[in-house]
Amino acid sequence: MKTGFFKVKTREEVWGEFERFPLLRPEEVPLGQALNRVLAKAVVANEDLPAFTRSTVDGYAVCAKDTFGASESLPSLLEVVGQVDMGETPAFAVGRGNAARIPTGGMLPAGADGVVMVEYTEELDQRSVAISRSVAPLENVIKRGDDFRSGQKALPAGRRLRAQEIGLLAGLGYHSIPVRRRAIVAIISSGDEVVPVEQNPEPGELRDINSHSLAALVQDCGGVPLQLGLVSDQFQSLQDRCQEALDRADICLVSGGSSVGSRDLTLEVLTSFADSEIMVHGVAISPGKPTILVRTGEKAFWGLPGHVASAMVVFQVLVRPFMSYLSGASLALGQGLPVPARLSRNVPSKQGREDFVRVKLRQEDGALVAEPIFGESALISTLVRADGLVCVHRHTEGLYAGEMVEVIGI
Amino acid sequence: MKTGFFKVKTREEVWGEFERFPLLRPEEVPLGQALNRVLAKAVVANEDLPAFTRSTVDGYAVCAKDTFGASESLPSLLEVVGQVDMGETPAFAVGRGNAARIPTGGMLPAGADGVVMVEYTEELDQRSVAISRSVAPLENVIKRGDDFRSGQKALPAGRRLRAQEIGLLAGLGYHSIPVRRRAIVAIISSGDEVVPVEQNPEPGELRDINSHSLAALVQDCGGVPLQLGLVSDQFQSLQDRCQEALDRADICLVSGGSSVGSRDLTLEVLTSFADSEIMVHGVAISPGKPTILVRTGEKAFWGLPGHVASAMVVFQVLVRPFMSYLSGASLALGQGLPVPARLSRNVPSKQGREDFVRVKLRQEDGALVAEPIFGESALISTLVRADGLVCVHRHTEGLYAGEMVEVIGI
Repeated sequence: MKTGFFKVKTREEVWGEFERFPLLRPEEVPLGQALNRVLAKAVVANEDLPAFTRSTVDGYAVCAKDTFGASESLPSLLEVVGQVDMGETPAFAVGRGNAARIPTGGMLPAGADGVVMVEYTEELDQRSVAISRSVAPLENVIKRGDDFRSGQKALPAGRRLRAQEIGLLAGLGYHSIPVRRRAIVAIISSGDEVVPVEQNPEPGELRDINSHSLAALVQDCGGVPLQLGLVSDQFQSLQDRCQEALDRADICLVSGGSSVGSRDLTLEVLTSFADSEIMVHGVAISPGKPTILVRTGEKAFWGLPGHVASAMVVFQVLVRPFMSYLSGASLALGQGLPVPARLSRNVPSKQGREDFVRVKLRQEDGALVAEPIFGESALISTLVRADGLVCVHRHTEGLYAGEMVEVIGI
Repeated sequence: MKTGFFKVKTREEVWGEFERFPLLRPEEVPLGQALNRVLAKAVVANEDLPAFTRSTVDGYAVCAKDTFGASESLPSLLEVVGQVDMGETPAFAVGRGNAARIPTGGMLPAGADGVVMVEYTEELDQRSVAISRSVAPLENVIKRGDDFRSGQKALPAGRRLRAQEIGLLAGLGYHSIPVRRRAIVAIISSGDEVVPVEQNPEPGELRDINSHSLAALVQDCGGVPLQLGLVSDQFQSLQDRCQEALDRADICLVSGGSSVGSRDLTLEVLTSFADSEIMVHGVAISPGKPTILVRTGEKAFWGLPGHVASAMVVFQVLVRPFMSYLSGASLALGQGLPVPARLSRNVPSKQGREDFVRVKLRQEDGALVAEPIFGESALISTLVRADGLVCVHRHTEGLYAGEMVEVIGI
């Protein structure tokens, strides 16, 4: 166990410590299980997509030049030389003065370079069609390789897979893909006053909230929560439970009682394992200052504040980015894109730390207004009412009513 | 089968048809499976949360009045009458001139109405403590019922459960909760040119993309995808497959070949079932005009365009809100909150329909810029590059470069 002098780190410094941990190993999963997973390596197109030049409408494949100047009053008359069937290579070519019936998705016959929509055509007899609108070359056509060309990088490593990426992978013929393994995240709640949700608390006791809200956050980040339950504020019980976490999980979240004694105990236990190193002991954020990060071999222990809202804020600001890092994805605060909004009132803050203020969003005159929710971070209702967090930067003493802020999704 | 005269509906009119379908029935699920599910009925607090008045810091419980005017140079001297233990009801009261040691989360003793942080105290001996800062009544304290009072509505029906709602439910003692059942969504791809992802396409053939991207979207909306695979453009095959969907699913998505013949076939099949009614036949959106919605008893058939990007846009704009409706949640376009951004270039559009333009977002001078992605809706790469959609409203002829737009998450 390495110890030493620890000073409170900034959020950026904490994020910088992540690279001391190895990424999760890759695994191959079927396409149907790949949503929201992170690609472990870049995907290269092994073939052209689409593999052939095709029509995007129902109509007539033509040489575009033959339609120049065509209008309702002066249509171009073309000879119908064939019909393209879906899923087939046309056995004929389209020369100057020719046209061929083609359905949406049909392969463009050799010689043709555009398709006239059926709405602008009139078949005069089996062999001739009148075209009443001109088409440009490649109009109503997608060319072989327009999506991706063979050999081209289609998706980079580290990309989180949405429905469209999954569609693309299907189109390229990948029925399974290499993604980073899900992190297994053990969750331990400590504190002598906490009882399981099934139990009626005695006076002075409270039900365990953190185990459940943290498990949901872990799921939300694509991790697998492993609830190891409650443990009393005693060295041996906490150490045993943490050892179980080391054996079974990649990450362990210990949401401590928030009292000083309880925090000291957590640190004492976390540093009692061989090959453990304190990476972070105190972060310049509020709420969340007493956060701890200890590396034990390749595993990470996070000591989170016991107050329910503090624990959730620390998760969004530090643990979620950590889980993104481990899966090779890019790091960001909270979920989704930050949403700009106008602050409804002044928010005081202290210089030297980032304050994460809970806000509720509402529409006002067609614009978004962020209403700060003040209240103790021991209250869960403040987060239930909140739509997001606003970060008050380290170098400011607060924000003024009317300022534009970025709301981090939670 | 009722038929009749059908005119193209607006998106709002399509949303209005949803109420012809019954909501999914409620089911009880354990808390650990409740993330992103939708509450089937309001949750009322059956007890006060927290159940007792507690300290939010380590320090001394006092009568706030006794600290008025206290400072480092002139501390208040108080008599230490006891120590609050975690999880216990204090056996003593704190009267005027008294103080009691209290840990974070400890129950406030009778008589005390505030807590002085330990940083501002000095214990002179076992029986006396010097207080060097004043506290206001209720400072560093959360009162019984500050989160929710017994009998108060804690969460409304229709609320989608995030981590904080799950934490709250745990705090209130709910270990299982009534949510709407997940919709089972059958997915059928039709088209003679389409082959399964595992198969190498012959010239003129393409791999099935829609089955996979739609299944991912269904998962993303909290539904259970049921992939019924590919079916050729023949009445009997498509009808058999749709019958299977009727038997096994709540919703069926048929992404048709996009040719007129193929669309006609889909409508013919969907209206061949007893008790079926065409609700929507054509929507004033682009892409996505040929969309069909047929009600068969309590089940919904959606006929989606065959073009991959069109099918995904229709899903985000119509099917996702439909699935929200069925689970009792509020309806919205796409995912999450729309993000304001400045349009980088002109976007032409046609009056009389809503255009959904794919855009890529980038930061420029600290503000978000939405860059339209033009390209055929038969290309999946346009959606892979996109971060969202911008809706060009029905009554405008387009948007100008520099206009502020709302970007819908996809």
